[in-house]
Amino acid sequence: MINLKYTNQKLLILDQTLLPNEEKWVEIKNKEDAYEAIKKLMVRGAPAIGIFAGYCMAIFSKDNDIHELKKYLDSARPTAVNLSWATKRIVNAFENGKNLIDEAVAIQNEDIEMCRKISEFGLSLLKDGNGILTHCNAGELAASRYGTGLGPIILGKEKGYNFKVFCDETRPLLQGARLTSYELEKAGVDVTLICDNMAGYAMKNGLIDAVLVGCDRVAANGDVANKIGTSSAAVLAKYYNIPFYVLGPYSTVDFTCKSGDDIVIEERNSDEIKEMYFEKPTALKQTRCLNPSFDVTDNSLITAIITDKGIIRPPYNINLKEKLND
Amino acid sequence: MINLKYTNQKLLILDQTLLPNEEKWVEIKNKEDAYEAIKKLMVRGAPAIGIFAGYCMAIFSKDNDIHELKKYLDSARPTAVNLSWATKRIVNAFENGKNLIDEAVAIQNEDIEMCRKISEFGLSLLKDGNGILTHCNAGELAASRYGTGLGPIILGKEKGYNFKVFCDETRPLLQGARLTSYELEKAGVDVTLICDNMAGYAMKNGLIDAVLVGCDRVAANGDVANKIGTSSAAVLAKYYNIPFYVLGPYSTVDFTCKSGDDIVIEERNSDEIKEMYFEKPTALKQTRCLNPSFDVTDNSLITAIITDKGIIRPPYNINLKEKLND
Repeated sequence: MINLKYTNQKLLILDQTLLPNEEKWVEIKNKEDAYEAIKKLMVRGAPAIGIFAGYCMAIFSKDNDIHELKKYLDSARPTAVNLSWATKRIVNAFENGKNLIDEAVAIQNEDIEMCRKISEFGLSLLKDGNGILTHCNAGELAASRYGTGLGPIILGKEKGYNFKVFCDETRPLLQGARLTSYELEKAGVDVTLICDNMAGYAMKNGLIDAVLVGCDRVAANGDVANKIGTSSAAVLAKYYNIPFYVLGPYSTVDFTCKSGDDIVIEERNSDEIKEMYFEKPTALKQTRCLNPSFDVTDNSLITAIITDKGIIRPPYNINLKEKLND
Repeated sequence: MINLKYTNQKLLILDQTLLPNEEKWVEIKNKEDAYEAIKKLMVRGAPAIGIFAGYCMAIFSKDNDIHELKKYLDSARPTAVNLSWATKRIVNAFENGKNLIDEAVAIQNEDIEMCRKISEFGLSLLKDGNGILTHCNAGELAASRYGTGLGPIILGKEKGYNFKVFCDETRPLLQGARLTSYELEKAGVDVTLICDNMAGYAMKNGLIDAVLVGCDRVAANGDVANKIGTSSAAVLAKYYNIPFYVLGPYSTVDFTCKSGDDIVIEERNSDEIKEMYFEKPTALKQTRCLNPSFDVTDNSLITAIITDKGIIRPPYNINLKEKLND
């Protein structure tokens, strides 16, 4: 993994908050280090957090009560479902007398396998030389290997495909610039960074053959919640007749959620837009911002949803459910 | 004017490079100051540059050869058509024995009149309480009064309209954040700053009733070159059934330019995307950027082009020419 190493009983993580300017591997020596790493987003991305928490539980339960440890680590990011899922799995392994490090490795390997399947299905839809637009970061840094949204690109690179990838910088938190362009450079992929408002220009000028994005939640009707700006990229792709693919584990489909209208969008602080990352504020102190973290892409704009269970095409309300029994 | 003052034979300008964090009025004492002010973008926006150059020519020709002075000032920004147009006009006035300050004032008053007409035509298409999306800056700071793209908003405010304006921050140079949100706050307008990738979210959620943008060049068929991101806002507006209005002086129509395909788009440096305004670079040193300054909005996406000669609607190839004889 490019973001975690466990060798000679030492757990090291790449501090993602310092990327791309500094590649600093930090040793996680105790449960307090683990808590901080999750809380401060040194580790981020649902699968990556789960894998990291698995190792931390396995290692630090030697010196701590495992139930207390679970509660403590879960509290570092209470809304991260994958975190409590992974810590619970290690507790279960403990209660069943299994080797806990083996269980952590299993979590990691299952994630790699899931990402590999998504990547293979995704790659089957692409051709060598394709121009690809991405938004935000759904790559190796957020998962184990390959990643989801970026998976077909990384797997394709391994297999000798040469894609030309354009990545949106993804304001306001710049995940596309800081993380996606970084990890694609590291993987040797031909990558070009653009501002979010340049995606339409790239499409109009024939530079884009497909759009690949990850997903935070998929509703039963195929509406997709993902990083703010995703739905605009989808509208542009529709207008310019470019296929728009959403990639993620099948477990991201939430059948209790009928449509995108049921998804509540978190609005975040103005400072993220006006101040974060900048030398000086970009607007007056009193200027109000609207800062939604996510948006909902209508299912009619999505060419296919690519999961570890296969490629799902419209009508999603029928075809997403059908995969349940596969 | 909010960006220039001429009183007691003193010429002062608001240094726009320091906005919004500092409001510094700088006295222009000699031709060297004038040259620097244009070159360093302390004054920006085609009309504003023309007006400023008019005053500088009128004032500093007392102590300088007027032809040398014209050549010197023109060289501060050789591609700014309005600059050489204004300096030439003062030279002509000089040769005709006119009062040069009067001529500079005339340039300014004509610009105010032109902006007022655009603003009035534009305002006739809006309703009190409308939500309005803007992109980049085509306001008072770039012109004399009212501005073009923002004109209907500022004029409307004077007349008691209450608009809810959303302004795109406009990456990479952040004109929307630094200048548009600043000048709308100053004018007492209800303004909300968003990242460029949030415009679609605002439209989808019913916050936008009309989009207003300026223009750098209008082709004979109504295709419009304007700040990068404009065409994406137009595609989104079409998708969400929201009128998309382009505002600018009729002189922006270039009949020698048949369509947008004839407009060459300037590509600028990667540093503007990765480094400018930021505390630290947002991507690796070797990461390449695509940085087009402008894009072309297809005429089919434009509801109306609003000029000082009136509101022009499709088919633009016929109706733009018709206005020539008005």
